[in-house]
Amino acid sequence: MSSVNQIDLMEKLHRLEEENARLQVLLHIAQSLQEELSLDKLLLKMMEEVAQILHADRCSVFLLDEEANELWSIVAMGLKKGQQIRFPADKGIAGYVAQTGEILNIPDAYKDPRFNPDIDKKTGYRTRCMLTMPLRNKLHDIIGVFQVLNKTDGPFTKQDEELLEAISQIAATAIENAQLYEDQVKSFNSFIETLSTTLDARDYITAGHSRRVTLYTLALSDALGLDEDTREELRYAALLHDIGKLGIPESVLFKAGKLTEEEYALIKSHPQITREILSKIYFHKKLRNVPEIAATHHERIDGRGYPSGLKNGEIPFGGRMLCLADVFDALTSRRQYRDREPLEKVWQLIEKETGTAFDPRCVQAFQLIPAGRLIEIMEQERLQELDEEEIEKLYTVPLKSILEWKRDGAENLAPAERELLALFDKYYERRY
Amino acid sequence: MSSVNQIDLMEKLHRLEEENARLQVLLHIAQSLQEELSLDKLLLKMMEEVAQILHADRCSVFLLDEEANELWSIVAMGLKKGQQIRFPADKGIAGYVAQTGEILNIPDAYKDPRFNPDIDKKTGYRTRCMLTMPLRNKLHDIIGVFQVLNKTDGPFTKQDEELLEAISQIAATAIENAQLYEDQVKSFNSFIETLSTTLDARDYITAGHSRRVTLYTLALSDALGLDEDTREELRYAALLHDIGKLGIPESVLFKAGKLTEEEYALIKSHPQITREILSKIYFHKKLRNVPEIAATHHERIDGRGYPSGLKNGEIPFGGRMLCLADVFDALTSRRQYRDREPLEKVWQLIEKETGTAFDPRCVQAFQLIPAGRLIEIMEQERLQELDEEEIEKLYTVPLKSILEWKRDGAENLAPAERELLALFDKYYERRY
Repeated sequence: MSSVNQIDLMEKLHRLEEENARLQVLLHIAQSLQEELSLDKLLLKMMEEVAQILHADRCSVFLLDEEANELWSIVAMGLKKGQQIRFPADKGIAGYVAQTGEILNIPDAYKDPRFNPDIDKKTGYRTRCMLTMPLRNKLHDIIGVFQVLNKTDGPFTKQDEELLEAISQIAATAIENAQLYEDQVKSFNSFIETLSTTLDARDYITAGHSRRVTLYTLALSDALGLDEDTREELRYAALLHDIGKLGIPESVLFKAGKLTEEEYALIKSHPQITREILSKIYFHKKLRNVPEIAATHHERIDGRGYPSGLKNGEIPFGGRMLCLADVFDALTSRRQYRDREPLEKVWQLIEKETGTAFDPRCVQAFQLIPAGRLIEIMEQERLQELDEEEIEKLYTVPLKSILEWKRDGAENLAPAERELLALFDKYYERRY
Repeated sequence: MSSVNQIDLMEKLHRLEEENARLQVLLHIAQSLQEELSLDKLLLKMMEEVAQILHADRCSVFLLDEEANELWSIVAMGLKKGQQIRFPADKGIAGYVAQTGEILNIPDAYKDPRFNPDIDKKTGYRTRCMLTMPLRNKLHDIIGVFQVLNKTDGPFTKQDEELLEAISQIAATAIENAQLYEDQVKSFNSFIETLSTTLDARDYITAGHSRRVTLYTLALSDALGLDEDTREELRYAALLHDIGKLGIPESVLFKAGKLTEEEYALIKSHPQITREILSKIYFHKKLRNVPEIAATHHERIDGRGYPSGLKNGEIPFGGRMLCLADVFDALTSRRQYRDREPLEKVWQLIEKETGTAFDPRCVQAFQLIPAGRLIEIMEQERLQELDEEEIEKLYTVPLKSILEWKRDGAENLAPAERELLALFDKYYERRY
């Protein structure tokens, strides 16, 4: 009897050990998934973790897009951020599971008529066994599908199914949280972008101005190697830098003739109104400098700017960047009554004010922006008409070189340089 | 040897069972906390779950507000949503733990000099033993404190400490997710509210208009018993219903004299511009009708409204609500050149258009709004000057009664009714 007991005990022990291992895996994945609110990163993490836990070669998570009635997934490797694969929500094994809610454990995919071998054909991958399971949220709605491929040690077992089922509950909540969060970010972003565009559009002269200033500022951020958080802060400040113009009567703002002194003073109050409006908005602490950066886009490092006459380091660096981007756009915008100023003239004006209006570091970094990128920003409204190959070529040369070549004169350039300069001029002068 | 083995096995079994129970608790709490992105609800859930798991009478979660250098907590019961207690971040046991990062397991609080008995004095609660532990995020920063009080079966053990430590890691991530999410919601909200106010303020005649229309619409939602999601949708639609005015030149929008036919047509295009602007904004699917509701606030159920001449059910119900709120505000706003119209006259105009401009259900429900609430909305700008007690009295009577009493004449009323009517008139006519 003692030996029978012992066998019972050993069995019980074994079951408990297995159950413990299972719980540890689930707890680990719950904590790991909980840490990601970015949907893309979450999906990648999920796919890696699940493949590892189930000793499988690959795992895909397909999410259901109800409106388009499609399943979509991000691709783990080799594609740009945000790139997706999409297919009809009833196609293939994943589609079957999304429709029926059944769990499919298929030992040999090619023997199953529902299997769609197209993706294997494209990628050269060879699917053998697959375990596919619906992802259900807490309301038990199907929000997507887990698909695990090619277990290294034989077909997927009943235990694998159970484990994946427990994981998919945890995964579904994590996905819904990330979606809710990203929805909010998307709402906030689209609202600011729409408002910025709408405000610009009130006057044909400034149409597209804030958007271009934003893109120049971001290009400058890249040239300076600024981090992602700073970039975000600059993006919001740039999109909203002129929101204070809402506080100035249109009769003054859009006056065609010469402004009186009073009217000019009113116009010059717009950065201060920008500050007042933006100060009422709650920005996450990572973005806390947005109002101050936006409000200082007309300050000059020599202290002769407005509204506060701040000097050098008193102006946040972002404000100094905006200042340059703002003037560059003003100088290179086409006005109804005239063409774009020649680049040499534009740059002379900027160099003349370097060290007085502009921070020399900003001016230097601005010249590192690829010429192709500058053209794309200047020609935002005709983006579809640009020749992709030509723009790509212009991406290989910084503004600095264009400026040097113009100084040297086309006749003194190597043929390749001459070609690039001509290409730049073609787009700059809008002869396309 | 067999018996020794058996004892070993039993011990091992026991440890495994304990570990198993522990893992199940942690997994349960990870899943449970993961489900809440609303910070208030999350904290409540956390406090309940932890008290139960540790067999304790109470649990509080204090969060660190770095900017104010305070610890704060929501109170579980008896207080309104969002109400908080706050104290300096170095006060009491919780403050000590937040500062030092130590875990304090105190068997008798009253024998510890760091214990602050003030809260017990106020609440009549008697703290005996307490376990207090820092909440650390994944960067190991202290973001708050867990405090568990009065274990039912004796003082807290070492095992309790270990369990709470594991829980607090899970809890910290859940809290940070909820904070990030709420930060985004707060940003979006504050941006829309600020913009709405800023747009209203462009013209003194409409100052505060969108805000009041929003408040009337929400009061009407409550009278109709609409759910929280619909209320949110209406709130955004109301705040933004006039954003399309951004597309109309101020020279027309604010023209003092008579409008030409063309100018009038331009003005009448503003709801359509509202639709165009709002359609570019990404709204979560719960809020998907915001553009359509906002764009139909000048439609009439008889089809004679603008911009589309929609009829009855073609107009979303929210649009019909906005329409009434919009007109009610226009009729009850004080203009520079005249006082507020008498309420009888306002209501006559509304009744005259009930069934033609206004949906009778909206007009009926509007009369159920407490008179005190209407006064608070009308007198938004002087909210501080209202007598709280008097307004509370006016909260006991719906607009319907005020209108009936006015029809009956003050001389035919009971003294209590007469008093309430006089109170209403005092605020309505701004004699305060």
